[in-house]
Amino acid sequence: MPTGYVHHPLFYWHDTGTSAGVVPADPSAGIQPFTHVESADAKRRSHELIHTSGLLATVKVIDPREATMDELLRVHTSDHIQHLQEQSELPGGGDAGDGFSPVGRGSYRIARLAAGSLVELVTAVTEGTVSNGYALLRPPGHHATADQGMGFCLINNVAIAARHAQEVLGLARVAVVDLDVHHGNGTQSIFYGDPSVLTISIHQANCFPPDSGGLGDNGLGDGVGYALNIPLPAGTGHAGYLHTMREVVLPALDRFDPDLILLSAGFDANVFEPMARQMLIADTYREMTRLLVDAAERLCHGRLVSAHEGGYNPWYVPFCVLAHVEQLSGHRTPVVDPYVGVVAADHLLPHQREVIEAAAQLVAGIKPAPTNSAA
Amino acid sequence: MPTGYVHHPLFYWHDTGTSAGVVPADPSAGIQPFTHVESADAKRRSHELIHTSGLLATVKVIDPREATMDELLRVHTSDHIQHLQEQSELPGGGDAGDGFSPVGRGSYRIARLAAGSLVELVTAVTEGTVSNGYALLRPPGHHATADQGMGFCLINNVAIAARHAQEVLGLARVAVVDLDVHHGNGTQSIFYGDPSVLTISIHQANCFPPDSGGLGDNGLGDGVGYALNIPLPAGTGHAGYLHTMREVVLPALDRFDPDLILLSAGFDANVFEPMARQMLIADTYREMTRLLVDAAERLCHGRLVSAHEGGYNPWYVPFCVLAHVEQLSGHRTPVVDPYVGVVAADHLLPHQREVIEAAAQLVAGIKPAPTNSAA
Amino acid sequence: MPTGYVHHPLFYWHDTGTSAGVVPADPSAGIQPFTHVESADAKRRSHELIHTSGLLATVKVIDPREATMDELLRVHTSDHIQHLQEQSELPGGGDAGDGFSPVGRGSYRIARLAAGSLVELVTAVTEGTVSNGYALLRPPGHHATADQGMGFCLINNVAIAARHAQEVLGLARVAVVDLDVHHGNGTQSIFYGDPSVLTISIHQANCFPPDSGGLGDNGLGDGVGYALNIPLPAGTGHAGYLHTMREVVLPALDRFDPDLILLSAGFDANVFEPMARQMLIADTYREMTRLLVDAAERLCHGRLVSAHEGGYNPWYVPFCVLAHVEQLSGHRTPVVDPYVGVVAADHLLPHQREVIEAAAQLVAGIKPAPTNSAA
Amino acid sequence: MPTGYVHHPLFYWHDTGTSAGVVPADPSAGIQPFTHVESADAKRRSHELIHTSGLLATVKVIDPREATMDELLRVHTSDHIQHLQEQSELPGGGDAGDGFSPVGRGSYRIARLAAGSLVELVTAVTEGTVSNGYALLRPPGHHATADQGMGFCLINNVAIAARHAQEVLGLARVAVVDLDVHHGNGTQSIFYGDPSVLTISIHQANCFPPDSGGLGDNGLGDGVGYALNIPLPAGTGHAGYLHTMREVVLPALDRFDPDLILLSAGFDANVFEPMARQMLIADTYREMTRLLVDAAERLCHGRLVSAHEGGYNPWYVPFCVLAHVEQLSGHRTPVVDPYVGVVAADHLLPHQREVIEAAAQLVAGIKPAPTNSAA
Ligand SMILES: [Zn+2]
Ligand SMILES: [Zn+2]
Ligand SMILES: [Zn+2]
Ligand SMILES: [Zn+2]
Repeated sequence: MPTGYVHHPLFYWHDTGTSAGVVPADPSAGIQPFTHVESADAKRRSHELIHTSGLLATVKVIDPREATMDELLRVHTSDHIQHLQEQSELPGGGDAGDGFSPVGRGSYRIARLAAGSLVELVTAVTEGTVSNGYALLRPPGHHATADQGMGFCLINNVAIAARHAQEVLGLARVAVVDLDVHHGNGTQSIFYGDPSVLTISIHQANCFPPDSGGLGDNGLGDGVGYALNIPLPAGTGHAGYLHTMREVVLPALDRFDPDLILLSAGFDANVFEPMARQMLIADTYREMTRLLVDAAERLCHGRLVSAHEGGYNPWYVPFCVLAHVEQLSGHRTPVVDPYVGVVAADHLLPHQREVIEAAAQLVAGIKPAPTNSAA
Repeated sequence: MPTGYVHHPLFYWHDTGTSAGVVPADPSAGIQPFTHVESADAKRRSHELIHTSGLLATVKVIDPREATMDELLRVHTSDHIQHLQEQSELPGGGDAGDGFSPVGRGSYRIARLAAGSLVELVTAVTEGTVSNGYALLRPPGHHATADQGMGFCLINNVAIAARHAQEVLGLARVAVVDLDVHHGNGTQSIFYGDPSVLTISIHQANCFPPDSGGLGDNGLGDGVGYALNIPLPAGTGHAGYLHTMREVVLPALDRFDPDLILLSAGFDANVFEPMARQMLIADTYREMTRLLVDAAERLCHGRLVSAHEGGYNPWYVPFCVLAHVEQLSGHRTPVVDPYVGVVAADHLLPHQREVIEAAAQLVAGIKPAPTNSAA
Repeated sequence: MPTGYVHHPLFYWHDTGTSAGVVPADPSAGIQPFTHVESADAKRRSHELIHTSGLLATVKVIDPREATMDELLRVHTSDHIQHLQEQSELPGGGDAGDGFSPVGRGSYRIARLAAGSLVELVTAVTEGTVSNGYALLRPPGHHATADQGMGFCLINNVAIAARHAQEVLGLARVAVVDLDVHHGNGTQSIFYGDPSVLTISIHQANCFPPDSGGLGDNGLGDGVGYALNIPLPAGTGHAGYLHTMREVVLPALDRFDPDLILLSAGFDANVFEPMARQMLIADTYREMTRLLVDAAERLCHGRLVSAHEGGYNPWYVPFCVLAHVEQLSGHRTPVVDPYVGVVAADHLLPHQREVIEAAAQLVAGIKPAPTNSAA
Repeated sequence: MPTGYVHHPLFYWHDTGTSAGVVPADPSAGIQPFTHVESADAKRRSHELIHTSGLLATVKVIDPREATMDELLRVHTSDHIQHLQEQSELPGGGDAGDGFSPVGRGSYRIARLAAGSLVELVTAVTEGTVSNGYALLRPPGHHATADQGMGFCLINNVAIAARHAQEVLGLARVAVVDLDVHHGNGTQSIFYGDPSVLTISIHQANCFPPDSGGLGDNGLGDGVGYALNIPLPAGTGHAGYLHTMREVVLPALDRFDPDLILLSAGFDANVFEPMARQMLIADTYREMTRLLVDAAERLCHGRLVSAHEGGYNPWYVPFCVLAHVEQLSGHRTPVVDPYVGVVAADHLLPHQREVIEAAAQLVAGIKPAPTNSAA
C-alpha cells in the first residue's frame, strides 16, 4: 500500500511578507525589509525534490480540501477563527496573535486548506487506502493554541486531525510526537488536561517559546502524565536524538498504546537551521522515521500521519524531508544527501544524556492509557 | 565644478511589499505573492554602478535631509501628508491613494527624505557649489498630485523642489521636463494654472494614467500654454526621442527662458522596460542629457537638476542612469553599455513624426514667459 | 476528451546562472551579477496558477520522458548534441553556442526531458487519448538551429516533435505557428527547404535575432512558399495580432491543410514583457488560441499541440498561459486577469496594417501542400 | 580620532553563483539551484545599517585599492595567485581550490581589492590617522592557506595585512584574534612556525574544517606556543565567549605583548546563523569588542584592525556588525537589536568551561614574545 501525500501550491502562496527574518521591517528602527524566514522556499523545494527524485511516483496524492467550521471549532475558539479571517482580509495582511505570525491576504483560506488536508490524510490512513502519510503543509500549526496563533502558526493542524480521529474516525487514543525543534506548546496546551491524547515534544531547551516545555510540565488534572517534554540542550545531534527516541519516545508510546500516531514533523533541528542550534542530518530524520514506523506497526496497524511544521533552511530541509518520506514509503531514491560530507559527526554528551534520562524516568510514571469507555 | 549627487540607503528601504508586480497579492484571486516592480533593485544597482565605475569619485555628494512641513505644504494638502503618515504607521503598511502606491512601514519618513534631499540639491545648484545635479530618489514623485499619491508616487519631489526654487531661492521661472515614460500628471496638475512653471512631458500615449497627457492638454487659465504634452506612440525609440527634444523640448525651453530646469528623470522608456513599450538605449539618455545640459547653460547658468522617477528593469536602468550622470558631470567612465549589441537600431516612423510635429506646433503658440514682477 | 498537459519541476531547475538579465555578469566591466531573465519564475508561477485555479484538475497530465538520441538526431547534428552534453558537465555550466544561451550543470538532460515530453504529448494527441495539448517546457527551443543553440534555446523541441509526427506517427504535413515575439529562426532554418512543414512566425520586426524573419524570407528550393514571416512593428497589440491571425495565419493554414498544428507558444508579446515591445493581454492569447483550436478542428481533427517558448515577465505571463490553456481545454476558471484594468486598449495602426497586408499577399502565393507520396 | 572604515560595492559583486547553500547545484543529483550562502546580503545590509543608523557619519572612510603583487606574494604562492586569476577569467567562474570556494568572473580583482584595502586600513591605523578600524571585506580570507583557497576564502586578507605591518610598517609582533565560528586554519597555517605572529582562534569544535583547530595544535618549531585554539562545543553562547575572552584571549595577548592586533571578525557565531551552532547575540560582539579595544589600548596604542570574515544570516549579522563598529568607534546609535527579545539568555555550562580552562592552561605556557632582533 502506498504512502499518502498531501501538497498544494496554495501552501506556498501563504504570504509572510517582508519581515527581516522574524521581525517586521521597520526602516526607522534600522530594520531593513527582507523576507520572512518562514517563506515558501524550504517547502516548495522539498516538494520538487520529492518529485524529481522519483519518490512522488510511488506515493498516493491525497486531494486537499479546506477544513470545515466544525472541524476548526473542535480545537479553536470561534473568536480565534474570526480573528484570522479578519486579519486575512486586511489589504496588507495582519497577524495571528503574537506579532510574529504573519497572516497574508487570503491566508485564512490557506490555513484551512492545510488543516482540512491533514484531516483527509488521517482519514485515508485510518480507512486503509494508504499505509501512512505525510502532509507538506504550510502554514504550520503546532504553536497555535485554542485561542491564538503564535510562532508563525495560525491553525493547529495536528490538533484538528487528532480530534477528527477521535470524534469521527472512532480512534480512542492519539499520540502526538513533536519533533520540531521548538516546543509544541500549542498542541500541548490543547490536550493538557486530556488523557486520551499523549503529547511528546522533543525540542531545544528554552528556545521558543521561552520558558516553555520544561521536563516538569506533564499535564493537568486527568491529563497528568499525558504530556511529556524532552528539552534537549543546544548542540544536540544524531546520537542525542536517537537516544531520546529509544529511551523516551518509544517506551512512552508502548505504554500509552495509541490507536494513531500523529507526527509534528518539524525539520528545524537540522544542522544548518537558522532558527535553532541542533545538529541533525537527513539520516537522523530517516532513523527516527524508521523507529516511528516500526512503533506504529507494532501498536496501531501502522497508522502514522506526519504533518510538516517548521524547518527553514531552504537548501537542507528538502533532503531531510526526502529521507523522512522515503522511510515512510519504504522507497529509497538514488538521491544522496550532498551535505553529509561537510558536517562533522557528533556524539552523545553527558549533559545531553542527563536530560534524556530524566525524561526517561517520567515514562515509567506514565499511567497505562485509560481504556476507551466505548471499548 | 562637480555635479551634485544625492543618494541614501533609506531610499532602498522603502518597502513596496509582496505585490505581483503592480497588483497586491491575493491568493484567492490567483495572484501569487511576488515583489513589487517598483523595488529597490534598479536604484541600488544604479548607485553601485556609479560607484564601481569610478563616477562617484568625480561628483559631490550632497547630504540628504527630510523635507520640512513647510516645504511639503507648498505643494501638498495637509490631509494628504497626514494620510501618508498614518498609512506609514500601519503594521503592514498601506497605500498612498490609488491602490497602486504602496506605503511601507516608515515610508513617510523616507518620502520626506527624498523630497528634502532634492531641495538641498536644488539649493546647491542655485548657490553654485555644484554645477548641476542628480538625485537618485525613491519613492518617485511625478504622479503624486496635491492631494493624493498615485502610480507608486507618494510625495511630488520635483514640485516641491520647484516651489522651493521660486519661494526661497528667488528663481522666477522653472521648467520641468519629464522624460519618464508615463505622463507626469501629478506635476502637471500642480502647476496647471501657473504660468511660472512650464511642464513638458514626453510619454507613451495612453499608457499611465489612462487618458492623461493628451496633445490638447495645455494648461488652465493663466497657465494655458505652460503645459506641453508629447504622447509618443508605443515603439518609439532613439530617433523619435531625439527628434522630440530638438523639435519640441528645446524650442519650448528657449521660448520660456527658465531660471532653472528640473528634470523628472524616469528611465522607463528604455528598451527592456517591463512597464512601457518604448525603445531607448543608454545612449539616448546620454544624448538627451547633452541637449538639456546645453540648454541649461544657454538659458539659466547651467542650472539643471535631475530627479530619478521610474525605471524598473533592474539590469538595464543602471546603464541608462550611468550615461545620464556621466553626461551631467562631463566625465566618461570606461563602462560600455553591454546590451547595445543585442538590440536593433530604430528609425523615426511617420506616425511618430506626426505626433512630434503636432506638438511642435504648440510650441510656437507658447506665450513668452511672463516676466517676474520683481525683475 | 481532456487537454494533455506536460510539466515537470526539472524544467524549473534548468540553471541559467547569474547573468545581468541577458549578459553574463562581469564586475570588471560594470556588469553586476543578478538573475538571468530566462529564469524559472514565469514558468513555475504559470504552473502553480494552472493548479490553484482548478484548471489542472481538468487536464490529463502526460508523463515526461527524455528524448531518445534518435529523436534528437532527426533535427540536430551529433556535434551539437555532444557539445550540449559537454557544456552541461562543466562545473560552472557553459553555453549552447552564441554566448547568450546558458547551459547549466545538468541542463543537457533537462533539455532532453523537454523535447521528449513534447514528443509524448504529440503522440497522445495523435493517438487521440487527449484532444489537444500544452507543454510547459523549459528550456525553450525555437531559436535552436540544427547545429547550434541560440537565444536561450538548447534543443528545438518543436522541430523534434514535428519530425516525430512525420516519421513515427505518419502525419504528412505539419504546420508550425510561432507566436513568440522573437523570430522562430531555428525552426524556420530546419525546415527551410522542406515543403512538408509550413513555418509561420509572427514576431516583432528586427528584434531577435537581428535582421531575421523578414517578409521576403519564404523558403528555399522545394521549401519556397512554406516559410511565412510577419514582422510586426514594435507597439503592436491585440487588434494587430488578431488581424494577423485572420488575414494571414488562418488562410495560410487553410491552404496548407496540415495534419498537425504545432504552436511555438511564446508569451513574450505581452504588454509587460521586458524582452520585447508588443502589447498583448491575456485575452489576446485567449482569442488567438480560440482561432487556432477552430482551425485545428476544421483541418486536422483538432490536433493542436502547444509548446511553451519565451515569456519573461514573472507576474503577467501566468495569466496569459492560463487564458491559453483555458481556451485549449474549454474550461474557464474564475480567475480574472488582474492587470487588465491598468493597461489601455489598443487599435490597429496603419503602419501595422501595411505589414499584415503584405504578408497576406504572400499567403495567396502558397502552393497547395504537396500530397504525401505514401498517401 | 575616528575609526577607519572600509567598504566598496565591488565586494558585493563577488559572484558565488547558484549553489544550493554550500554545494554546487546539480539537478541530476537532486540539488536544485539556489543562492550560495556566502552571498552579498549580510554584508550589504551591514553597510546599509551602518549608514542609515548614522554611524557612517562618525567614521573615516578609507579608500580601497587592490593589493599589489608584492603584497600578495608575502603570503601566497605565485601558483595560487595565478590559479585565482585563471579561474576568475573562466566564463562561468571557477573555484579557489577545495570545490567549496566559488571564484566568480572578475573575483580575482575583487579579492585583491579586499586584501589591499585592509593593508590601507592597517597603514592608517599605524600612522595614526584613525584610531582603529573595521573593513567590511568580501570575499573573506581566514581559511585560505598559502597555496590554496578554501571555505569561501580566496586570499588571506588578514595574513597579508599582518605581513605588511611587519615588513613595511615596522611592527614586530602581530596578534591575530579569530572570532569567526570556524577555525582560522589558513591564517594559522601561514604563521604556524613563526613566533612573531600569535594566532588565537575561538571556534566551534570540529565544525569546519573537520578535525582542525584542536586544543593541542600550538605551532611548529619556533612557532610552538604561538598558535592557540579554543574549540568551543556547539551551543556555546554569550557567557562562554566572554569567559573565553577573559580567561584565554586577554591573558594570551598580555603575555605576547603585540604591536598590532588584527581581528578576523567572523559574525557566524551568532544565534541565528545557518553555518554554525553557537548562540551569540549582538551584545556579545559588543562586549568582546570592548575587551579587545581595551587590550589594544593597553598593549599597542589602540592598534586594533578588524576584518570581516564569515557571518551568513542576512537579517541578524547587520546588528552584530553594528554593535561591533559602534564599540570600535565609541559612538552608540539609537538602533536596538530587535531580535534580542526572541532569543533566550544562556549560561556557561560545565562542558564548555572545561574546554576554556584547558585552553587557559596553554596560555600560561606561552613564552614571552621574542624581541625583534632589529630592536
Ligand atoms: Zn519550529
Ligand atoms: Zn514611469
Ligand atoms: Zn521570445
Ligand atoms: Zn566562518
